[in-house]
Amino acid sequence: MTETALVHAHPEPPQVEVARNSESLDDEDNTLRPSFIRRVTEALDADDQETVYNLVEPLHPADVADLFELIGPDYRVDLARAINDLLGSEVIAELNDYVRDDLVEDLDPDEVAELAGDMETDDAVALIQDLDEEDQQAVLAEMEPEDRAAIESALAYPEDSAGRMMSRDVIAVPEHLSVGDLIDFLREDQDLATEFWEVFIVDHKHHPVGTCALSWILRTPRSIALADVMKRDQTLIPVTMDQEEVALRFQKYALISAAVVDESGRLVGQITVDDVVHIIQEEASEDILRLSGAGDGDINEPIHLTVRTRLSWLVVNLGTAILASSVVGMFQGAIAKLALLAVLMPIVSGMGGNAGTQTLAVVVRALATNQLTSSNTIRMILREFRIALANGTTLGLMIGGGTALLFQNPLLGTVIGAAMVINNLVAGLAGILVPVTLDRLNVDPAVSSAVFVTTATDVMGFFSFLGLAVLSGLA
Amino acid sequence: MTETALVHAHPEPPQVEVARNSESLDDEDNTLRPSFIRRVTEALDADDQETVYNLVEPLHPADVADLFELIGPDYRVDLARAINDLLGSEVIAELNDYVRDDLVEDLDPDEVAELAGDMETDDAVALIQDLDEEDQQAVLAEMEPEDRAAIESALAYPEDSAGRMMSRDVIAVPEHLSVGDLIDFLREDQDLATEFWEVFIVDHKHHPVGTCALSWILRTPRSIALADVMKRDQTLIPVTMDQEEVALRFQKYALISAAVVDESGRLVGQITVDDVVHIIQEEASEDILRLSGAGDGDINEPIHLTVRTRLSWLVVNLGTAILASSVVGMFQGAIAKLALLAVLMPIVSGMGGNAGTQTLAVVVRALATNQLTSSNTIRMILREFRIALANGTTLGLMIGGGTALLFQNPLLGTVIGAAMVINNLVAGLAGILVPVTLDRLNVDPAVSSAVFVTTATDVMGFFSFLGLAVLSGLA
Repeated sequence: MTETALVHAHPEPPQVEVARNSESLDDEDNTLRPSFIRRVTEALDADDQETVYNLVEPLHPADVADLFELIGPDYRVDLARAINDLLGSEVIAELNDYVRDDLVEDLDPDEVAELAGDMETDDAVALIQDLDEEDQQAVLAEMEPEDRAAIESALAYPEDSAGRMMSRDVIAVPEHLSVGDLIDFLREDQDLATEFWEVFIVDHKHHPVGTCALSWILRTPRSIALADVMKRDQTLIPVTMDQEEVALRFQKYALISAAVVDESGRLVGQITVDDVVHIIQEEASEDILRLSGAGDGDINEPIHLTVRTRLSWLVVNLGTAILASSVVGMFQGAIAKLALLAVLMPIVSGMGGNAGTQTLAVVVRALATNQLTSSNTIRMILREFRIALANGTTLGLMIGGGTALLFQNPLLGTVIGAAMVINNLVAGLAGILVPVTLDRLNVDPAVSSAVFVTTATDVMGFFSFLGLAVLSGLA
Repeated sequence: MTETALVHAHPEPPQVEVARNSESLDDEDNTLRPSFIRRVTEALDADDQETVYNLVEPLHPADVADLFELIGPDYRVDLARAINDLLGSEVIAELNDYVRDDLVEDLDPDEVAELAGDMETDDAVALIQDLDEEDQQAVLAEMEPEDRAAIESALAYPEDSAGRMMSRDVIAVPEHLSVGDLIDFLREDQDLATEFWEVFIVDHKHHPVGTCALSWILRTPRSIALADVMKRDQTLIPVTMDQEEVALRFQKYALISAAVVDESGRLVGQITVDDVVHIIQEEASEDILRLSGAGDGDINEPIHLTVRTRLSWLVVNLGTAILASSVVGMFQGAIAKLALLAVLMPIVSGMGGNAGTQTLAVVVRALATNQLTSSNTIRMILREFRIALANGTTLGLMIGGGTALLFQNPLLGTVIGAAMVINNLVAGLAGILVPVTLDRLNVDPAVSSAVFVTTATDVMGFFSFLGLAVLSGLA
């Protein structure tokens, strides 16, 4: 993308930004202080745009983005109007998706096109991909042909793929160059990517053959050939690879940047670690939020969308709760005879649910981070079984002994103790078998596992306890 | 740390590693194939050390580390013996903590000292910090004085602080240098950090005054002064900052590396993003695992430790389950009269639990990522209240209407519907108030929130439903 070059051949002194570490704006968590937010909202209430501008001006773009998220929806348009030219592409790129869409909604296609033109390709794609087809076309039509081509080619790749994330700006040079040639080339060419951390060496077919960290180039005499200093082993990212796998690769091999190659092995772009950091955060957060049925759990999401997401999950759970309660319904006669059974039964089902959730959380994370693979699945199932047996036995003895003593009823104690052991085993096995099976079926285990596991522990908790109570002649 | 320099003044051709992208070893998830693991274990079973060595030799150190984790505890010592010199510091640094401790246990202090001496400071610290005091001293005594000093000074900082993570190898140069001087300096000094992405410019007190990305240096003519090309604004990391905050700062400002400063503002080291990537992953995973009471959820943890961690959480939950069941106990008379109450009550408590978990997951992540701060707490509480009201009303109408129709009992339907609304409000409010309060009290909300929220939804679920049933004269 065309971008203001950070360094010119004769650079001007860079602009001084000072606010970031200033104690007056940020608190110890590096977030904007409530007192600062209050000053901004008070100035907005007073329609004092100049004060707002002066308050916001020293902020880093990432902090301006935070400010938009923190002040609340009612102030956002006024704030945007007040700070005017401070709301540049760098701020927009840092904004939460929902907040950004809210602000961008009111802009004309040519204004969006101008913002997108100032951004890195991946940020511009993020800005444009959420627009509807018609608006997308209108914006693209207003863009420079080169930027437009870059965005269109990114949009041609699947969502969340390496092709969407990558930057097309990449330094690729032939093998025969010397270190000196390369440095001269970098000094001369003003259109190069402004952010790069390594140089990729390619053959005549544009296939990557090696890579050279900038620190190596700086430390090697000019006369040495790149072929002698480059690292031949490198991690290549296929352009269609899912972003989650890209992130795992960066993490595993401690990469700063990596070459992206198309189907024929040609270098088509690079991914840098700063984009990957967001994805690791997102993907790990997603697992918690999905496990609990909170969708993408974005606190800036419009409330009706949040309600819809959470409600659909709750309705599914209502179905499983009704299923479990119908198991209790089978034992109404026993409960009428001995109401104590109804008092104790939630303990068995609830503890199963807790144990199942523990296993589920461990397994979902291990699957997501490639620690649980087909090589060690059997070993891990046995591991969970042993843990469930140990925990179930301990809890069974505790609750069984306690019940026997408290109600002077050894048979009731035995029944609840045995049910506790059974349900812990159900919890442990469901907690690993459900997500592993879903993963094999290419269903995200974080999304749907919890329903199955909770159903299993509720149903089996009630059934084992009430069933044993009837079988043993308790009621 | 003394480390094999990646680049010499007259570099030898680097060793070619090929396995990483080889389809025969890795599957599409970039993990080792089960067939490969099987070949290794079969060779180990046959005591065929040469085959094992040849199989493992082409692997990247990160994959050798994966192999140790995947093959299971019984093979690990044999594998270590078979691959011998391939088990270098790079593999050890990549190993899971438990697996590493297992392997290192059998080594003599001088062998550990040799491994640690080959590592980056942060990896060496990770290796040594888990040893008991006596072994630590024995290992440190065997180390080179310089490495020893670096590790001892790292160990003097709190666990999980920037001081533990940082590398002391940092390129710091005075402001008056020109780009050419800097390049000459880098080419001459062979003892410099082998991995660096930016150069820090310091004043005479060794306080950072600016930073220069290597790409800028490469693209700027030799004659330009660093003072004219450096970026004066930079994010400084206090040496005592918690690693989670360090990670958030890297993420927020898209940093590749950052200067670490001591209390007096002197540059004492740098942190690079590859170390931060692990922390982001860990911290986000921790939240899921802690929310579900699975401790650190490491699948390589010895099983008795896992049982202890999970069991202690389950025992706490047993207490809350007993508390909730004692609420049911108050209504035994009503249940004996109308056993249907026992059938329906788990629906109310269970749905409250689900709704509470949704809110909890969202709030815990928003707190951890600094999106929920004191500036927007009130707004978020109101948001959760509105969501809970919408969801509770919908679910209440569904279950209330269904119950009224199915059992031809409009009063019962009204009671369960009302209880559902009440318990959803309890869930939503507890789901945000509990973690926010814990966070204010500096207690990790991920660790203890779930117990309080579940207790609230269980107790209030039973109490509201059974209480309303009695009040309304149903039983």
